[in-house]
Amino acid sequence: MSDHSIPTIREATAKDVSLILHFINGLAEYEKLPHEVETNEAMIADTLFGASPKAFCLLCEIDDDPVGFAIYFYNYSTWKGKYGIYLEDLFVSPEHRGKGAGKALLIHIAGIAVANDCGRFEWSVLDWNTPSIEFYKSLGARPMDGWDIYRVDGEALEKLAGTAVASDE
Amino acid sequence: MSDHSIPTIREATAKDVSLILHFINGLAEYEKLPHEVETNEAMIADTLFGASPKAFCLLCEIDDDPVGFAIYFYNYSTWKGKYGIYLEDLFVSPEHRGKGAGKALLIHIAGIAVANDCGRFEWSVLDWNTPSIEFYKSLGARPMDGWDIYRVDGEALEKLAGTAVASDE
Repeated sequence: MSDHSIPTIREATAKDVSLILHFINGLAEYEKLPHEVETNEAMIADTLFGASPKAFCLLCEIDDDPVGFAIYFYNYSTWKGKYGIYLEDLFVSPEHRGKGAGKALLIHIAGIAVANDCGRFEWSVLDWNTPSIEFYKSLGARPMDGWDIYRVDGEALEKLAGTAVASDE
Repeated sequence: MSDHSIPTIREATAKDVSLILHFINGLAEYEKLPHEVETNEAMIADTLFGASPKAFCLLCEIDDDPVGFAIYFYNYSTWKGKYGIYLEDLFVSPEHRGKGAGKALLIHIAGIAVANDCGRFEWSVLDWNTPSIEFYKSLGARPMDGWDIYRVDGEALEKLAGTAVASDE
């Protein structure tokens, strides 16, 4: 018999906002970027549990104890003509690593992707995070080499939005 | 006076599926991956113009002539607690380059992002596409160095979805 109990997955509800914020802070500390967390319980409630949420949160529990979470949304493959799933965040509390929680979350989301005829399931990983990269590759994931992500935010986004449209680039 | 007319942006409708497919094929040829286009008019109609679309298409016209398109969807920043916009595709027909169409599409989407209190506006670019990279940087975009995208699709996705959840990773 196993030493551990089987991880189970459930959809988060508005009652879980405090727990979700706890996991978000834990993830940011793990990624060495704790100062980048700007969200709070009210913003989590508003974005994930409002009238028509575009992002979704799953919780992983072992013996009814919450051990990790995942947040995902639907993206789109123009070439396939299908939606896909993008995993924005996945985190398992350090004290609960090695019990299958992360894998259970990934398997569950892969199931949601297949059930919704999604063409792909994607996420990003920091390039120094070798343990995670090896884990993801063991599950069949492959790196999308050759693509770089560009971002506009903050004042640059406001400025771009306010730019007058002209007749030449 | 300018030699060109000002580009205008409008939301695509179900009547535009043929035009959208035309632009998708044009983009795939530009990215040297024409064999990767699997979509068709029915799939475009179903995903972009169905009951509750999760991805959205804009068309750019100059003198009522369609010259380019963009497809975007909403992503989510867990740390900001806000939605963002991800630009999946942007394409301007080669014969209409240099007339401000691409910039007009980006400005329009930046405006949608600001109007919806989005925390960021992002897209991916092929790392050999120097002209586009320079163009994006001129608009205030910056590369998100250090992150790699991983993908599971096809048989690997089906296999992952069908994996039994166990009590250890």
